[in-house]
Parts: sequence; structure tokens; C-alpha cells
Amino acid sequence: MTDRLSSQFAFLDEIDRLKAIERATPIGDNSRPENSAEHSWHIAMYALVLADHAGPEVDISRVIKMLLLHDIVEIDAGDMPIHMAHDAEAHAAKEAAAAERLFGLLPADQAAEFRAIWTEFEAAESADAVFAKSLDRVQPLLQNLAVGGGSWIDYNVTMDQIDTRVGVKVNRGAPRIWQFVRARVAPFFSASR
Amino acid sequence: MTDRLSSQFAFLDEIDRLKAIERATPIGDNSRPENSAEHSWHIAMYALVLADHAGPEVDISRVIKMLLLHDIVEIDAGDMPIHMAHDAEAHAAKEAAAAERLFGLLPADQAAEFRAIWTEFEAAESADAVFAKSLDRVQPLLQNLAVGGGSWIDYNVTMDQIDTRVGVKVNRGAPRIWQFVRARVAPFFSASR
Ligand SMILES: [Ca+2]
Repeated sequence: MTDRLSSQFAFLDEIDRLKAIERATPIGDNSRPENSAEHSWHIAMYALVLADHAGPEVDISRVIKMLLLHDIVEIDAGDMPIHMAHDAEAHAAKEAAAAERLFGLLPADQAAEFRAIWTEFEAAESADAVFAKSLDRVQPLLQNLAVGGGSWIDYNVTMDQIDTRVGVKVNRGAPRIWQFVRARVAPFFSASR
Repeated sequence: MTDRLSSQFAFLDEIDRLKAIERATPIGDNSRPENSAEHSWHIAMYALVLADHAGPEVDISRVIKMLLLHDIVEIDAGDMPIHMAHDAEAHAAKEAAAAERLFGLLPADQAAEFRAIWTEFEAAESADAVFAKSLDRVQPLLQNLAVGGGSWIDYNVTMDQIDTRVGVKVNRGAPRIWQFVRARVAPFFSASR
């Protein structure tokens, strides 16, 4: 049992480093970039609050678990901003190695369980993963909106790009939420570009 | 439905401010104080990872919800370090007012639900709340240990105080975890004081 706790605390100590991984979007007062740990908390709260907009086949407790651990690979692989051009295959390989190392700190049964949940999230096929991905993509829009542009300005983003890179995917898992958020976001782009 | 989403997003936008609430403990690389949003993520991960050390009557999904929202009142009331002398009654009143205002941004049914979960956490009587409180108290010990003292040094804390202010409560909800963590923490105090 002590061995089990040793592995569990080795993991819990190590994931503290997610607090130092910076994202492209700022926090709401625009004072600094958001980090991936507080982002993970925020989208877990999105899941808790927006649960009633998920389909009946979605298990919100699983979605929350998925969102809590989905970014842990960034400790080794870094955050990849959605609007930044990159080699998707190379980045995916980096994340897979990160999942091996980081979840591998846990006892074997938990390592396998966490890796499976992370893989399910990445695959974006199950109902839980599709809803979780929708929330993960929608939160940065509202962060950018709150600060008058944020990473939209840094990456020179257009409403068309929002629709194709974000909208299509949010719409799959949470069409009502997408309709609502799109209506809030669109005026920024018609006003500024 | 749009009204419901408006209230839900008003709440989700507002709670972004938890990312600016500083705690007494530092993050693991000792570069800055931990904020309450990333702390909430970290202890939700504690619950996920340490679930197998909870009693059979504990519902881990409820514990995770509780931990995700337990610190939101700090947006208005601030964080009160456990080792800092303070007027407990005045602080509790501030937190109750904060819960009214912040959870009150949500649709009425959710406002009532979140307030009830927060009240249950604060009361520390149900099995879920007792386990949640144990994790909330244990994480700062490991943060302080990681940085060679942290808020223990700022507040001149002794092992006796750790035992009475933290140990008794962690022991109630998670005796095996307390035994393990106490053994890790105790050498710091015998070496340095
Ligand atoms: Ca993410």
C-alpha cells in the first residue's frame, strides 16, 4: 500500500508542473497568459455547469475526469495553439511519449486507465470525448473575447477560421452552445476586420 | 434556453477571477504563489488518483465536484491561510455572502445545487466532505515540502501545529494517506527546528 501511495504521490508531485505551461489565450483580466492547470479547472467547471446541454448518452463525471487529465501531456510536449501552423504528426508522437512517461508514474492499473481516458479524448469519437472536446475548444473563444481579441490578434484569425477550426467541432458535441457562443463572438470579427 | 445559457456563461466568465487569487503556498518550482484555480485543479486530481484510499461510502465524482467549486467564494472573500490568525466568524460571513453572489449568477436550480454542495463541504460532516477536506489540507503540505518550507517558514509553523491543525482532520477522512504524508513531512521539522 505504501508502494502504491509512493507512485501516486510521485505523479501528483510531478503534475504540479502543468501550472507552468503557458497557453496562447490570456486570463480574463489580460494580465498574463493562462496556464494549462487553471485552464483544466475552468473547463471542468464548464462541464459541470453546462451538463444540461449534453446529449443523454454523455456521462458528465467521465467528461470531467477526461478534462482534468487531458492536458497533462503538455508538461513534456508543451501547448500547441490551435491557430499556429505545426507538424501535427510530430506533435502527436511527442504527446504519446509524454502520456507514457507521465501516466507511467502511477501504479500500473491507474496508468492504463488514465492513458485510456486520454486516448479516448484525443480520438474524439465517443460521446463523452466529443462533448469534452467541444468545451475545450469553446473556452478559449470566451477568454479571447473577454480581453478584446487575445490570441485572435496574435495569429490574425478570421471568423471563417473560427467556423472551420472551432465551430464544426463544437457543433458536433454541443450545437446549442455553439449557436449561443457564435452569436457572442461574431460581432468582434465583423467590427474589426 | 438562451436565458439559461446567458446565466451559465455569466458565471463561467466571472469565475475566471479565481486565477488571480493567491494562496500562501508556492507552486512546486517556487517561482510564485499558487493561485486558487490551479490549486482546485490539483486537488481534484488528488481525488481522482487517491480514490482507492477513500471509504466505500465516498462518491468520488461528488468529491471532485465539491473540490472544483469549493474555493470559488475566494473571488470575493480572498484566501485565508490556515496558519494565519483571523476572525473566523467574520470570514465565514464574508464567504457566505460570496456564495450568495457568485452561485447566484447561475440559473436558480443550479445556484441552489452549487450552494448546497459548498455548504456540505464547509460543514465537513458527510463522508464526501470529510474526504474532500482531507485532500484540500494535505496538498499544501506537499507543496511546502517540495520548496523546502514555503508558508511553514512564513508563519513559523511547528510539527505540533501541523498535527493539530492538519493531521487530526486528514486522519478523519484518509488515515492511510495521513500516515504516509506525515512520515514524509516530519523529517523537515526535526531537521530544521
Ligand atoms: Ca485543452
